[in-house]
Amino acid sequence: MIHHYQEGTLQNGSKAIQEYTPAELAVCYGCGWNNPHGLHVKTYWDGEKGVTRFRPAPHHAAYPGTTYGGLLASLVDCHSVGTVVAAAYQAENRAPGTDPVIIYVTANLNVTFKQPTPLEAELELIARVTALNGRKARAECIVKAEGKVCVTAEVIAVRVDPQT
Amino acid sequence: MIHHYQEGTLQNGSKAIQEYTPAELAVCYGCGWNNPHGLHVKTYWDGEKGVTRFRPAPHHAAYPGTTYGGLLASLVDCHSVGTVVAAAYQAENRAPGTDPVIIYVTANLNVTFKQPTPLEAELELIARVTALNGRKARAECIVKAEGKVCVTAEVIAVRVDPQT
Repeated sequence: MIHHYQEGTLQNGSKAIQEYTPAELAVCYGCGWNNPHGLHVKTYWDGEKGVTRFRPAPHHAAYPGTTYGGLLASLVDCHSVGTVVAAAYQAENRAPGTDPVIIYVTANLNVTFKQPTPLEAELELIARVTALNGRKARAECIVKAEGKVCVTAEVIAVRVDPQT
Repeated sequence: MIHHYQEGTLQNGSKAIQEYTPAELAVCYGCGWNNPHGLHVKTYWDGEKGVTRFRPAPHHAAYPGTTYGGLLASLVDCHSVGTVVAAAYQAENRAPGTDPVIIYVTANLNVTFKQPTPLEAELELIARVTALNGRKARAECIVKAEGKVCVTAEVIAVRVDPQT
């Protein structure tokens, strides 16, 4: 039995999709609100796309002055899957936080680093769902910094049963 | 001007390729020995493949009991690029730590999660270079846990000038 701590809607922009994840499942290092050591990615869904912002820590470096690709891949992963989850609730005409909880896991993460991502910048990630068929979904995501698209990515996610 | 803190060879297995990175460049969150907050991926090259082992921390969870995909992508990234660097020194018949330093950056990271990776397990990553042509290199990498291949990946890396 999974308990939700609050029902709600995303369209008002006040609450991220990850904040609806039940406490016992919200342990993801990337986006679990219940992981005190994690990155706490928060995906805001506006009905068409997911948006998040993230400011890397100084220790999230690759080479001096640039952001680590593994961090960027992590942000892309959680934000894209969060966007898929938000879109899936919308496709079912349901508010997040209503039963049954919608859970997707990443099957493939394909990240292209177009140019170095500056470390001392606020990153903006924008994700869109390009396919939502049966249990399988696809999303495209970009990472922008200082007005430039530094990363493009595609994520394939698969819906899983919340009891498993 | 880049200073190396020690010359050496990898084939004896005693020193990881990342340990030859000059201090001022060794700040990568994934594999920089000079980043006190980092993951410290260490790639050991045996002349044919790169091998590393990593034990995730309890906070590196995805869902309970499984390892976070973003961490796995990070390990794959640094270990694959480390393997490319080791292979590149070998291709030039040079020991790591000799000038000029060889630096590659990741252009594309494509990670497939075949099955959940257990969290409380030692991971083994094995990477092989599949192409090393001009400035561009490709590597394939797998992540094994408890005897199973949980992740397969391909990385495209591009050699960059150490002065840039």
